[in-house]
Amino acid sequence: MQNLLAGTPSRDHYRSDQRARRRGRRAGRNNMTIRFGLIGCGIMGADHARILRSDIAGAELVAVQDMDTGRAAAVADGNCRVHSTAEALVADRGVDALIIASPDRTHAPLTLAAIAAGKPVLCEKPMAASLDEARAVVAAEIAAGRPLVQVGFMRRFDPGYRALRAAVAEETHGRPLFLHCVHRNAVGPDYVTSDLVLANSCVHEIDISRFVLGEDHARVRVIAARPSRRAANRRPLMMILESASGVIVSVEAFLDAQYGYDVQGELVCEDGTLSLDPHPPVSRRHGGLDGYGVEPDWRGRFADAYRYQLRDFVVALNGGRFLGASAWDGYVAAATAEAALKALAGGNVETVDAGERPMFYATRA
Amino acid sequence: MQNLLAGTPSRDHYRSDQRARRRGRRAGRNNMTIRFGLIGCGIMGADHARILRSDIAGAELVAVQDMDTGRAAAVADGNCRVHSTAEALVADRGVDALIIASPDRTHAPLTLAAIAAGKPVLCEKPMAASLDEARAVVAAEIAAGRPLVQVGFMRRFDPGYRALRAAVAEETHGRPLFLHCVHRNAVGPDYVTSDLVLANSCVHEIDISRFVLGEDHARVRVIAARPSRRAANRRPLMMILESASGVIVSVEAFLDAQYGYDVQGELVCEDGTLSLDPHPPVSRRHGGLDGYGVEPDWRGRFADAYRYQLRDFVVALNGGRFLGASAWDGYVAAATAEAALKALAGGNVETVDAGERPMFYATRA
Amino acid sequence: MQNLLAGTPSRDHYRSDQRARRRGRRAGRNNMTIRFGLIGCGIMGADHARILRSDIAGAELVAVQDMDTGRAAAVADGNCRVHSTAEALVADRGVDALIIASPDRTHAPLTLAAIAAGKPVLCEKPMAASLDEARAVVAAEIAAGRPLVQVGFMRRFDPGYRALRAAVAEETHGRPLFLHCVHRNAVGPDYVTSDLVLANSCVHEIDISRFVLGEDHARVRVIAARPSRRAANRRPLMMILESASGVIVSVEAFLDAQYGYDVQGELVCEDGTLSLDPHPPVSRRHGGLDGYGVEPDWRGRFADAYRYQLRDFVVALNGGRFLGASAWDGYVAAATAEAALKALAGGNVETVDAGERPMFYATRA
Amino acid sequence: MQNLLAGTPSRDHYRSDQRARRRGRRAGRNNMTIRFGLIGCGIMGADHARILRSDIAGAELVAVQDMDTGRAAAVADGNCRVHSTAEALVADRGVDALIIASPDRTHAPLTLAAIAAGKPVLCEKPMAASLDEARAVVAAEIAAGRPLVQVGFMRRFDPGYRALRAAVAEETHGRPLFLHCVHRNAVGPDYVTSDLVLANSCVHEIDISRFVLGEDHARVRVIAARPSRRAANRRPLMMILESASGVIVSVEAFLDAQYGYDVQGELVCEDGTLSLDPHPPVSRRHGGLDGYGVEPDWRGRFADAYRYQLRDFVVALNGGRFLGASAWDGYVAAATAEAALKALAGGNVETVDAGERPMFYATRA
Repeated sequence: MQNLLAGTPSRDHYRSDQRARRRGRRAGRNNMTIRFGLIGCGIMGADHARILRSDIAGAELVAVQDMDTGRAAAVADGNCRVHSTAEALVADRGVDALIIASPDRTHAPLTLAAIAAGKPVLCEKPMAASLDEARAVVAAEIAAGRPLVQVGFMRRFDPGYRALRAAVAEETHGRPLFLHCVHRNAVGPDYVTSDLVLANSCVHEIDISRFVLGEDHARVRVIAARPSRRAANRRPLMMILESASGVIVSVEAFLDAQYGYDVQGELVCEDGTLSLDPHPPVSRRHGGLDGYGVEPDWRGRFADAYRYQLRDFVVALNGGRFLGASAWDGYVAAATAEAALKALAGGNVETVDAGERPMFYATRA
Repeated sequence: MQNLLAGTPSRDHYRSDQRARRRGRRAGRNNMTIRFGLIGCGIMGADHARILRSDIAGAELVAVQDMDTGRAAAVADGNCRVHSTAEALVADRGVDALIIASPDRTHAPLTLAAIAAGKPVLCEKPMAASLDEARAVVAAEIAAGRPLVQVGFMRRFDPGYRALRAAVAEETHGRPLFLHCVHRNAVGPDYVTSDLVLANSCVHEIDISRFVLGEDHARVRVIAARPSRRAANRRPLMMILESASGVIVSVEAFLDAQYGYDVQGELVCEDGTLSLDPHPPVSRRHGGLDGYGVEPDWRGRFADAYRYQLRDFVVALNGGRFLGASAWDGYVAAATAEAALKALAGGNVETVDAGERPMFYATRA
Repeated sequence: MQNLLAGTPSRDHYRSDQRARRRGRRAGRNNMTIRFGLIGCGIMGADHARILRSDIAGAELVAVQDMDTGRAAAVADGNCRVHSTAEALVADRGVDALIIASPDRTHAPLTLAAIAAGKPVLCEKPMAASLDEARAVVAAEIAAGRPLVQVGFMRRFDPGYRALRAAVAEETHGRPLFLHCVHRNAVGPDYVTSDLVLANSCVHEIDISRFVLGEDHARVRVIAARPSRRAANRRPLMMILESASGVIVSVEAFLDAQYGYDVQGELVCEDGTLSLDPHPPVSRRHGGLDGYGVEPDWRGRFADAYRYQLRDFVVALNGGRFLGASAWDGYVAAATAEAALKALAGGNVETVDAGERPMFYATRA
Repeated sequence: MQNLLAGTPSRDHYRSDQRARRRGRRAGRNNMTIRFGLIGCGIMGADHARILRSDIAGAELVAVQDMDTGRAAAVADGNCRVHSTAEALVADRGVDALIIASPDRTHAPLTLAAIAAGKPVLCEKPMAASLDEARAVVAAEIAAGRPLVQVGFMRRFDPGYRALRAAVAEETHGRPLFLHCVHRNAVGPDYVTSDLVLANSCVHEIDISRFVLGEDHARVRVIAARPSRRAANRRPLMMILESASGVIVSVEAFLDAQYGYDVQGELVCEDGTLSLDPHPPVSRRHGGLDGYGVEPDWRGRFADAYRYQLRDFVVALNGGRFLGASAWDGYVAAATAEAALKALAGGNVETVDAGERPMFYATRA
């Protein structure tokens, strides 16, 4: 038992990935600096640029593009090319790989363009605006014959979720029975309806629970609570997924929790439980209180995940293994979210059916 | 905001109840020592006897009874009368009040006998073996014209749950939206089926969520997870209750968690959350681990609750207010559990309908 | 190792004391209701009265006295006799035992009077205003030939400290090496100087560290930090005690911590550590924070300790064992505090020499 | 108050350093890839190589050297030059900067060689084997006229300690009064005596407390506890430092704590406290326990610190600010440790006198 608990992932938990890196390196060529082009220079795009420049070995940001040329110039900061169109950036022969952080509706068309150009792409979620578009991306990647697409479900690189996945894969605490998830934002945007809570927020839990459990979902229920007085136009949701093997995944999704951004997870197995515990590095006692600060938004909460996502993308591009979500994962998440929307509308349990995984994706993480 | 958090209930949180006690004392007579008779001297009965003798002011254990006379004699310990039948104990004129901790099927008949004798009774849950029996107890108490019955839902006296109830009643964090409950036992008895998990374990959450939220439930769903390899004859359950006003209560019930007895609760309100946090008084670092011991069963976890339950029952008998679950509460819990059983069997959402609360119970806690 | 950590004291940790109680009962007579007289009806006295009436089995408050007759009447609340002098209360033949919570300078004279009257006494700390007075109390009790005096070092009844003491006594984590103590008040009274911080606050750690370690102190150092801007007339102190066997006890004493009352303790043994962890029963998330409320003063923090102190005093009076601090313990604490005062004044290490423990006290806890 | 606690450093706390980076970049030239040479390929050296290759933007490992050529080849892994002597590596014109992780006695000679070659050097602590050597390094760097030396006190880059330093610098909780430090290793090497505990372990707290408080120490005491039965040849130590302004720094140093590697710190200020809280990303419940794993050694505990140390060294080499410990800091730490050794030997308080900081170092962090 000592071993089980002592096996808690260290802060340096990624050490084992060095083997993947080394394998990659030996697989063919020496590591080369990957020259990145970034499409979309809003909050997420600027963050990717910052991380790339500060914290990623073997990578370089060489080109950016945004419809707002001021934002593009600000991110370029005089250190890289600025393209006036996304197409020009995709075509730039000095660009090896792409990061897509432009508006959601552009994700699929740009990903298809990247595939056509034979350039690997890390695309922010959602991968597509419709199931048909998602299927098209999958088909194009399969036709290209090699892995080119990674969807930005960054939680797959969070040390906590990886520890949960490892516990399931290695059955360190027996087989899983429940995965309880909480997804709270401090204050949601006005335009977000209950439907969008499912499509934009719960889709993270749909993907990460598949990642942790290592299997697809079979059924979904959604129950809406009464609205908070802080946001009359949407309702806090409870989504209940059942995995193929009978694990119950509960998800509270609440966009208006006021106190901060809070993502929790508890994996309940036959012999014990594991819980995400994302505390900051110091606690404080002040004014009658003893506790921790809570992150205001997802960028602080998942800062390590965003960094590891880019790091391991670079490793994969040098011949390592792709650890992130594939186009197929992006498609399954969208299909599951669609079933959840139906469950919310009709009040019944809905079957999830994404079809069978193509052989092409059999060896992805 | 400082006030909100500083308002966390102190370990001495019951101080305000002194007012109720004083009110009680002044209401009619001086405090008298209450002479208790105990029916049932098994684990729970022996525990009640122990608490009564060590920690309850103004009470005395004067008589006991058990079908197993050896157990009765052991609890009596030469310090009180031993009756050979429950009827004789109920009839004992030196007994002011009763504690019923005998087998479940005897609860309702003995409670009815106590009412007939005009003696107040604290009866272990469940109050009755059927809804009809439960209705009969309610009717008998109403006919008696004064409160005589308290059901042993001891969690209502747990300092943590009381803090949650106070937060709802005073809207310190806005109105409630979710109440997430976890109910895990280390190892369940072999004979317990999924149905009994609902009837015996989840009934605690059914009652305590009504207590915390201050309203009845309207709908219930039950979803069964795959069985643990540790117990093939029952399934871990997820029960979802919806309160009349639209609060979602989620309940994980898992009898075979192995690692210990673990009851958790998180109340999510519009402006913040409150969580039960039942740690022991010391943490330890040893053998690669930093943490707490977990209670092996409910008696340690709810030791304070059991003590307060008896203490406040004595206060109520001296003219104070009954703070515990009434016969009506016992009936509503049973009716809700019955709807949950139907939901488990049929796989659908079920409506909960306990009928309207009789006027007689309007002023109970 | 599992056993070690699983052995964390449960909330119901006092169960084993039932043996002491039973022993006591069988030792001579049946348990009788102990009739208490209370001298001093200020904050502490009123608290003792409240606890006695609400939470102590087998005890009754029959008489009170205070120089302020209004306070005495308020505590009596029409339910017990009010004496006009402490002497009259001591002499009251209907009073079996005394609680002394009057001003510090009266403690020794009243304790001597109680001994003269042959009545057991629970006396708030300090037991005496000088070492000579303390010696006089010890001599009088020895002359009386039976244990009559318990000093109100209530921490000895705190479940956390008892767990630390048990770990030392049973060597569950090897032998002790360090005991780190923190003693912080929110806001100290104006009149308290650095000397009084040692005599009134640190004296608690002097006593409790002897209790936890089961041995006397041999040496003491005191180092003063710069004063807080909140209190220029005293300095936060660091006291370092060395036990006879070479355990180092560090004590931070800070009366002006602002954020609340906070008493911490970490016992470091050869194979692991134990820490006091006195959290309230719920945690909260609100306004960017995730944490606990901190008690404003000692009464909430040590509510359980005050209750157990009175409960076990009653048990001892019925023939059980005295678990609390004896007159000898009160004298040793005073002698050690005097050495600490000298260390603060001179800046050097000082030897602690309380003399040898009289045989009379050999069997006390 | 909300702001104070909400200001807890996020996991992405280093974002502000981007300004330093940008300043650096604009200061003169474009960022260039820094070509590193590594001397010493033992545990620490191999770790630096791994971090450099995986996680540091703008850096490349081009040459290594170790007395054990097998170790050197293993770290080189066919991807960089292997030199047979440290001198050859220092002279390698393709090497821009050095990392020294060879045996302690070589640190000062190699650092002097690096200064002579005009190459910046990150040298593992201790910087020198004697105070005279330390003074020689300081003199050589001053003579060189520009900052070239950073000592590997990596804790200065730990997010927790940086938060403590920021709280002092910005007086967010008032001025500091105490800093309580704990430094525990699981199992110390046999050859380590009490003297070496001071010189090798406590020297970390000597440096980090200067860093957190922003001032030098004035006095030091050392008290030795009895030895653990696990290690008779050394004693657990309590070191008490007093800063120039009167802050008390307490340090427990215990090399044989068995349960794991544990570095704690609590900063007590006039209005509140901050504590390091280095938990792993998940907690677990298993086998009667609820808690966290503890790191086995310092590399996991300070993984982020090691990474930030190298990252910010690269930023500094590109024109940014040096945030790490200077040669002067290395010298002061050594001078303070020497006073502590004297205090341990003599049992008295000792004055710390490192002399006045040269103007050259006035602008370092």
